[in-house]
Amino acid sequence: ATTFRASEHQHIRYNPLQDEWVLVSAHRMKRPWQGQVEPPLLTTVPRHDPHNPLCPGATRANGEVNPHYEGTFLFDNDFPALQPDAPSPGPSDHPLFQAEAARGVCKVMCFHPWSDVTLPLMSVPEIRAVVDAWASVTEELGAQYPWVQIFENKGAMMGCSNPHPHCQVWASSFLPDVAQREERSQRAYQSQHGEPLLMEYGRQELLRKERLVLTSEHWLVLVPFWAVWPFQTLLLPRRHVRRLPELTPSERDDLASIMKKLLTKYDNLFETSFPYSMGWHGAPTGSEAGADWDHWQLHAHYYPPLLRSATVRKFMVGYEMLAQAQRDFTPEQAAERLRALPEVHYRLGQE
Amino acid sequence: ATTFRASEHQHIRYNPLQDEWVLVSAHRMKRPWQGQVEPPLLTTVPRHDPHNPLCPGATRANGEVNPHYEGTFLFDNDFPALQPDAPSPGPSDHPLFQAEAARGVCKVMCFHPWSDVTLPLMSVPEIRAVVDAWASVTEELGAQYPWVQIFENKGAMMGCSNPHPHCQVWASSFLPDVAQREERSQRAYQSQHGEPLLMEYGRQELLRKERLVLTSEHWLVLVPFWAVWPFQTLLLPRRHVRRLPELTPSERDDLASIMKKLLTKYDNLFETSFPYSMGWHGAPTGSEAGADWDHWQLHAHYYPPLLRSATVRKFMVGYEMLAQAQRDFTPEQAAERLRALPEVHYRLGQE
Ligand SMILES: O=P(O)(O)O[C@H]1O[C@H](CO)[C@@H](O)[C@H](O)[C@H]1O
Ligand SMILES: O=P(O)(O)O[C@H]1O[C@H](CO)[C@@H](O)[C@H](O)[C@H]1O
Repeated sequence: ATTFRASEHQHIRYNPLQDEWVLVSAHRMKRPWQGQVEPPLLTTVPRHDPHNPLCPGATRANGEVNPHYEGTFLFDNDFPALQPDAPSPGPSDHPLFQAEAARGVCKVMCFHPWSDVTLPLMSVPEIRAVVDAWASVTEELGAQYPWVQIFENKGAMMGCSNPHPHCQVWASSFLPDVAQREERSQRAYQSQHGEPLLMEYGRQELLRKERLVLTSEHWLVLVPFWAVWPFQTLLLPRRHVRRLPELTPSERDDLASIMKKLLTKYDNLFETSFPYSMGWHGAPTGSEAGADWDHWQLHAHYYPPLLRSATVRKFMVGYEMLAQAQRDFTPEQAAERLRALPEVHYRLGQE
Repeated sequence: ATTFRASEHQHIRYNPLQDEWVLVSAHRMKRPWQGQVEPPLLTTVPRHDPHNPLCPGATRANGEVNPHYEGTFLFDNDFPALQPDAPSPGPSDHPLFQAEAARGVCKVMCFHPWSDVTLPLMSVPEIRAVVDAWASVTEELGAQYPWVQIFENKGAMMGCSNPHPHCQVWASSFLPDVAQREERSQRAYQSQHGEPLLMEYGRQELLRKERLVLTSEHWLVLVPFWAVWPFQTLLLPRRHVRRLPELTPSERDDLASIMKKLLTKYDNLFETSFPYSMGWHGAPTGSEAGADWDHWQLHAHYYPPLLRSATVRKFMVGYEMLAQAQRDFTPEQAAERLRALPEVHYRLGQE
């Protein structure tokens, strides 16, 4: 019988954090691509555009004028998917027709006053200011809401409708679906094994090494064993930390620095401003924040779609939507490629 | 207190078939769109292109020459994600690192010898031939494999790399993730309520009417209460049918006819060849096919991404990937728009 080699033989892998499976078919990279190529990126974004509602001094859809901010800037989303005061749909009349109330707040956070930078092109102190703003908004909205979802859609390919560097924060009165799955998995793991799932997972990856991308004094970046997106990564603190506001000043500095390195590697991979959606997951907040959430470990997920080049992406379509996620090379191969990339940004190197 | 109106007030809805929640924020349609617009479609596809590996008489990547087929044509995918004979990864050494064997077969099915047609532009008897081919391939591959996933990726936007009308069939030695979720939900519902979940669901939708799109003697098309994609639909037989091969001749004719109507409405919505991924789910097959699968009801899911026009799609990105699916108008509004559309194709009307 042939010996199993992950890089050659298809197999399925389990994601114990989100209770999902992925099909890994490494041999598929040989397939030619004749499908859609993505439009080239805007090469020049003006540093300041008075008509861009995210710029300092610009007027937004609701008529408000942005301050001439110099660091980060947080404001209410003018088209929020969640508002603070929707009435409840009331009790359901049938088990197959269940609806529940949803209340919340949607904010936008600009990372920098300039439109022509992205996180990897910002300085470590500037990124540190973003980390602090993330921690503050978690604290502020987490006082009222059980879940504060910070996420960044980067690039037009990821539905981002404005090139100005920014992320969003959607706080909700309910635990969203993915949060519920991570809650169930982490709670069950802790009760069976007596320690947080992601603490043990991080330790194992440090021992196994093959999926590590970056390590620092306080943080790890790795391609998870169950990664679905081609170059998906997981960013984890080494210490047991439940939420962003708990990070110490040196953990925050170190986070800013490892993020800059990771995002520089991402941009260097295909010499493009690498698109992704990313977001933070930490223990639930709100009125239950004081309960026992020790099974939670803070982490960030990066989900980048590019597969082969700046214009050829992975499509999560038919089989993936109807049956199961599928990837075309192994997480170990992705980690190896990311590890090998320089930590100096290709655009800064050229200057 | 304000009275709840689904078309105005955000709320969350539960998908009892796949055990997932969706955030419905109907007020968000007012938001302007400044993000990516999709490239215009290829307006003219040649009817026959000898270099297209899906055309009759063309040579494929593996050197085989296609027959001059006149109806449907089924062949092995030259770049299969699943192959029949991969070795097993062996037992896992840690609960957080679980991998399992995956074996299978990937096939491609051409719907028609011409590259410049799509299902809604084909005749009912031609579509009926596709239904028969779906039933046969389910029977053939289902003899060996527990899951036979038939799916169609239509349009470049859905990762389809060839304009020739075709679908794919991936059969696997394992029950894929989504199948597992539907299995759990349908089994639990049957054991609690004594009848199949989707039989009761179809009956309820026939009574409630507001989400129905099309009904015929043997079939229903509706926008499910828990729809995630803007114009997502569910296609259900009225009779309790577990798998495609069980369909009677008149159910097959009627299916071909209702599919033509649905896909014509889809094309008419934005006067474009409407992109989507669709696929069939039926009871598991393989060596356990004889077990009790009465809780399963055959159905097809249609997941189309377009939101506002032929070039503006819904992006399932940041919040959706990290937290929960979100939609911008209600399933009832989608059903109403689809119901109102003509059943004659806009391109045929013009001719
Ligand atoms: O097999 P195709 O059409 O080349 O590829 C398409 O469908 C597959 C199955 O959904 C996906 O894995 C690919 O990402 C997509 O591009
Ligand atoms: O809020 P934006 O950036 O306008 O919109 C983007 O992110 C949202 C949250 O992930 C998605 O619901 C939208 O589909 C996407 O286009």
